[in-house]
Amino acid sequence: MTTLPSTMFAVIQTHDGYSDTATGPVIDAAADWLAEAEVPVPQPGPGQVLIRLRTASVNPSDIHFIKGEYGQPRVQDTPAGFEGCGDVVATGAGAEALNGLRVAFVAANAGAWAEYVVTQAQMCIPLRPEISDEDGSAQIVNPLTAMAMVDIARGDGDAFVVSAATSQLGKLMCSLGRDLGLKPIALVRRSDAVEALKELGAHEVLVATDPDVTQKFAALSKELKPRVFLDAVADQLSEQIFCAMPNGARWICYGKLSAELPKLTQTGQLIFMGKRIEGFWLTQWMTSTPPADQMRVVGEVQARFADGRWKTDVSERLALRDVVSNLADALKKGDGKVIITP
Amino acid sequence: MTTLPSTMFAVIQTHDGYSDTATGPVIDAAADWLAEAEVPVPQPGPGQVLIRLRTASVNPSDIHFIKGEYGQPRVQDTPAGFEGCGDVVATGAGAEALNGLRVAFVAANAGAWAEYVVTQAQMCIPLRPEISDEDGSAQIVNPLTAMAMVDIARGDGDAFVVSAATSQLGKLMCSLGRDLGLKPIALVRRSDAVEALKELGAHEVLVATDPDVTQKFAALSKELKPRVFLDAVADQLSEQIFCAMPNGARWICYGKLSAELPKLTQTGQLIFMGKRIEGFWLTQWMTSTPPADQMRVVGEVQARFADGRWKTDVSERLALRDVVSNLADALKKGDGKVIITP
Repeated sequence: MTTLPSTMFAVIQTHDGYSDTATGPVIDAAADWLAEAEVPVPQPGPGQVLIRLRTASVNPSDIHFIKGEYGQPRVQDTPAGFEGCGDVVATGAGAEALNGLRVAFVAANAGAWAEYVVTQAQMCIPLRPEISDEDGSAQIVNPLTAMAMVDIARGDGDAFVVSAATSQLGKLMCSLGRDLGLKPIALVRRSDAVEALKELGAHEVLVATDPDVTQKFAALSKELKPRVFLDAVADQLSEQIFCAMPNGARWICYGKLSAELPKLTQTGQLIFMGKRIEGFWLTQWMTSTPPADQMRVVGEVQARFADGRWKTDVSERLALRDVVSNLADALKKGDGKVIITP
Repeated sequence: MTTLPSTMFAVIQTHDGYSDTATGPVIDAAADWLAEAEVPVPQPGPGQVLIRLRTASVNPSDIHFIKGEYGQPRVQDTPAGFEGCGDVVATGAGAEALNGLRVAFVAANAGAWAEYVVTQAQMCIPLRPEISDEDGSAQIVNPLTAMAMVDIARGDGDAFVVSAATSQLGKLMCSLGRDLGLKPIALVRRSDAVEALKELGAHEVLVATDPDVTQKFAALSKELKPRVFLDAVADQLSEQIFCAMPNGARWICYGKLSAELPKLTQTGQLIFMGKRIEGFWLTQWMTSTPPADQMRVVGEVQARFADGRWKTDVSERLALRDVVSNLADALKKGDGKVIITP
């Protein structure tokens, strides 16, 4: 057992519970929600491990969470951050097998933005040596979501729609879709992203700010008949896209990047066309998917990162001690991930 | 074979196709959509029957349809009206077994508001003698919808929510729910309907115009945990009711009585709580439900009308020749059905 310090640096939350707002994963200043602190190094309980952080990634869900707009309540004074990569330096009873391993992890009750993190052993994935620490810090939330959601799409035809397709998750889904012989239809905000996304795997790319985007999508929809819409935006354009999809279409919301509240303009679409609106949450997928299936998916994810089919685009690197002061700016620097290091 | 006239009086549609509006099942004047006409008596083709009308009923779907807001396109100059009761006076090849019988029917491509109606033999239900012509004219659309939707509710717990509960369909669902040992939570527009609806089978009744209706529903929802919302209104209050329902709740729209377009205020409800929004259409149910199951349901419907557990509340009777001039006024006279006679 390594000798561990008794305290550590951490970026902690300054609010409790839910905020009852719905303003989206955007912040003006991280200091509105986060503070720097020296706190005790946590102890792993039964089935838990203590991880010394190598890298943490910043997902939109982290921002929803610190703002009190996520599906779990905040706990004041505990570290923020869901996902990272690090070395297991101590284990509780039943988790000894992970001792000394480099793992990707999800900190289920938050806590990745700290020098040390406690989480459940079952929320850790031992990493193959070919996987970099940066890829390791974004190995679970986005890749498993991509695998699970494209699997849903594959069950319902060969074309599917992906919004916010220049996000890390959007790119993973476009390339995975193409590799599986499917036809991803990508929605992006900026026209300069179109070519790169086509190269990555998108069958067609539409620009959300194009005044004719709805008509263009309607024509594509008629031709390709996409029945699954994997949507991270959930604004009025999303609703229009859904309305232009064929009978039996499913609008599956997995994020809320826009603060706009979409109106349901055509109830008849639900009644006469058998369409439906639903959600996707990785936590629910993990709870309901048999462990053997999850392990198969995890293995495929690592294989894709190991051989370069997938990679994590990094837009900014931040030291843990710069998160409170610089995170808001770092998040504005393009579509890649912000990576945090101790 | 009876000697038949060559022409008949009919209330025909004056528009084609869809209107692309969504203003709800309300009209200022039927003459905006309908006209009186003397038209040829139709001939039954193979598998079809010709019915001499006894009674037709007016459903909200008829009004949606004539306005071009239903899931099927209008055909100009053909009679309006989906549902009725009458005597089979001629049959096409393969439909001879129905000759001479009194049947309840649905005219799939419209046409019930006429002295004679052609429809498919499989859209006819021979009526037991105890069933009155008025009950017979409302034997299919509402009762089968009630049976099918309460069956959905029963598959998902014992409490369920019904909006527009003073409608004929709402009342059928409340009494059926109670008879099955379920707990219907009814939403109504007027407080004077509360007691009658409780007597009929509603476990709880809330008034939509009560300023505290959302809070009162939230308290009920916590106690009774309804997971199915059978909604004919689809307005903003419907959305708030959905948001106050527990994990896994389903908002099932089967009508659009309100012209208000509801905003989706909490995407997180779909993502984190596994809720979903969908529709119900009887036509789809008839297409996807095995004939034997449908016959069982049809038998149960007639048994309920025959022994008085269900009945059709009639708010107004109209002669076919008065439909164009008086339908709009007749529809304003309370929650019962408008019944049309030749």
